[in-house]
Amino acid sequence: MKTIQTQVAIIGAGPSGLLLGQLLARKGISNIILERVTGDYVLGRIRAGILEQGFADLVREAGVSERMDAEGHVHEGVELAINGKRTRIDLKGLTGGDEVVCYGQVEITRDLMDARREAGLETYYEASGVQPHDVKSDQPYLTFDHGGESYRLDCDFIAGCDGFHGVSRQTIPEDIRTEYERVYPFGWLGLMADTPPCHEELIYAKSERGFALASQRSPTRSRYYLQVPLTDKVEDWSDEAFWEELKKRLPAEIADKVVTGPSIEKSIAPLRSFVCEPMQYGNLFLVGDAAHIVPPTGAKGLNLAASDVAALYRILTRVYDTGDRRYIEQYSEIALRRVWHGERFSWWMTNMLHNFDQEVSNNGLDGQMFERFMKSEADYFLNSENGRRVIAEQYVGLPYEEVKEY
Amino acid sequence: MKTIQTQVAIIGAGPSGLLLGQLLARKGISNIILERVTGDYVLGRIRAGILEQGFADLVREAGVSERMDAEGHVHEGVELAINGKRTRIDLKGLTGGDEVVCYGQVEITRDLMDARREAGLETYYEASGVQPHDVKSDQPYLTFDHGGESYRLDCDFIAGCDGFHGVSRQTIPEDIRTEYERVYPFGWLGLMADTPPCHEELIYAKSERGFALASQRSPTRSRYYLQVPLTDKVEDWSDEAFWEELKKRLPAEIADKVVTGPSIEKSIAPLRSFVCEPMQYGNLFLVGDAAHIVPPTGAKGLNLAASDVAALYRILTRVYDTGDRRYIEQYSEIALRRVWHGERFSWWMTNMLHNFDQEVSNNGLDGQMFERFMKSEADYFLNSENGRRVIAEQYVGLPYEEVKEY
Repeated sequence: MKTIQTQVAIIGAGPSGLLLGQLLARKGISNIILERVTGDYVLGRIRAGILEQGFADLVREAGVSERMDAEGHVHEGVELAINGKRTRIDLKGLTGGDEVVCYGQVEITRDLMDARREAGLETYYEASGVQPHDVKSDQPYLTFDHGGESYRLDCDFIAGCDGFHGVSRQTIPEDIRTEYERVYPFGWLGLMADTPPCHEELIYAKSERGFALASQRSPTRSRYYLQVPLTDKVEDWSDEAFWEELKKRLPAEIADKVVTGPSIEKSIAPLRSFVCEPMQYGNLFLVGDAAHIVPPTGAKGLNLAASDVAALYRILTRVYDTGDRRYIEQYSEIALRRVWHGERFSWWMTNMLHNFDQEVSNNGLDGQMFERFMKSEADYFLNSENGRRVIAEQYVGLPYEEVKEY
Repeated sequence: MKTIQTQVAIIGAGPSGLLLGQLLARKGISNIILERVTGDYVLGRIRAGILEQGFADLVREAGVSERMDAEGHVHEGVELAINGKRTRIDLKGLTGGDEVVCYGQVEITRDLMDARREAGLETYYEASGVQPHDVKSDQPYLTFDHGGESYRLDCDFIAGCDGFHGVSRQTIPEDIRTEYERVYPFGWLGLMADTPPCHEELIYAKSERGFALASQRSPTRSRYYLQVPLTDKVEDWSDEAFWEELKKRLPAEIADKVVTGPSIEKSIAPLRSFVCEPMQYGNLFLVGDAAHIVPPTGAKGLNLAASDVAALYRILTRVYDTGDRRYIEQYSEIALRRVWHGERFSWWMTNMLHNFDQEVSNNGLDGQMFERFMKSEADYFLNSENGRRVIAEQYVGLPYEEVKEY
């Protein structure tokens, strides 16, 4: 067994792990990332594309914002359309200047990988059998296999950025952890195409046929989604069928502007709300999807991972600056407060914009009454300026909470 | 059978029926009210005490506001306290000048009864067996018994202000009506006492022991409520036990100011959300509790009845002014839009401020996750100025919708 060491061991080379590593390294805190698959595999995962201001600022703080600032597109608003009636949420105007950046998660990941390589920071791709040990002690370590060799990685702290199916969360004993979960009775069928987007901003559309989202990655790459039953399979949906259904769900004048083309990616994802409490156990910290999943309505998934990174980065920096380990006990509370805000907002947006089976009890309610409440919710929040402010403030992202000093 | 006639027959001499009658009479539209019980019995019902600005204005328009304006107390704010942490919702400041009036429903009813008597308008108290007929025709009528005699009341229109258990809603055939209902897993135990209120404004308090409301009718009459299990009976609660529990649920500095005293009324009411659609059927109109019930959290019950009255009054006035009967088709849509807003707000306030059994599925969710969402809801809405504006705007009451002209 080969023994290596670092200050912070990071499990997972997705955007959270990479961003955390970059930020720590710039403060002189050494870190090693262990990733189960290859870098190319990581880059093959299509994910979100809307970055909150706080996330964009964090990428800038990490010194990796050059391409994002050059190629990312600032969106000053977002549209919600209910049965063809469009309401623009003027993010910038309603929040007093905040906006979001449209820049693909894949691009951020690529930029972070490049920066990490240039900085000569260590990443073990295709590390298998990663296992945390003694995380409650002051000498935690990880074991893993890589290139036919067994490794032991000694460290001060472990950041579990290894996603929903990773080992990190499972390392917290079951009697310590509480997991909250809501699985929705539908999924999203996503299609990516190299065609110009139908609109300069995102459009979240509810129609009697179900939800649709007109999204984008760049001025030449569109990303569209359709609410579909969980029983549907990707093979059930030809590109033609997708485009046809999409146009029926979008407001007519928007549907007219949809430029169709061959899909370069098409997949179905289930919708889930999930939270694990606590997010810290000894010297192990859960970050991003390892601790929480949101349905994509509201674009919060990657952004909540970023606020976890921000909190952990600030906490670890203080620990190394002051030698005071008490800071780590703040992580769970700081991260979870914002996580629950994002979970709640995503749940609310999902409830308001999707069609549920009216025969099924939802929200402790008769499904038809739930449908009427959600119709009234949209009627109120979209027609009231105060309501639109509430949407805008949460869509651009609530402020990151400060670490308390001792 | 004795035949009498009027333009608008009103079933029910509660505040809705009386207010509608008064408003119509001032426009020269004749009306007769049929009430199942005695006037004293009606006045013995303890009900709400917070009037929205729109309701207060309507009472003024009816010319019955003298005592309300003299004795009613304007509340410019309301407090929400979560586990002892108090947040004042500055109704006046956050809405740009709106406020609510604290004046008991019983007092409004008394003022309206007095005004009706002075104006010499006909009311048949203790009218039994009231039955609407031919409501889809242009010659609807009612039959009833009164003082040992059988009556037929011919009219143009029938206003069903006869409450949840009245005959009006049942007159709409079952295949035409859709009823939405949510019964909550708890009730409110209310206590009235002739003691000064513990605070100048209302306090809605959530604690780990359950919800409590510190309310009032006047500077010398307090009204308090406690969330209790549906299995509790009034006899289970001595006055002493009530005061003791109340103090445990209110913020400590407020509990210290509670002045206890013998109860002059004590009762348990279940909490229910209920809506019947449509609210118009031929020449029959449902008004207030006949069509909808809200849980009392948010003080919307009487206020929604008032907006129904406002809509029906404006519509009938136009019908008699212009001879154009098409106006009546707007009633259901106008009334229901505001009803659903009030239903949604009351449901939301109830969800956010009560303790639910965490073991039970609620909102299509694991009960524990629902609890966490509601905790986050309170955290966001009470700490964000935009959130507080949304509460204030709805608490003072959304604007009444205009009748469309032809």
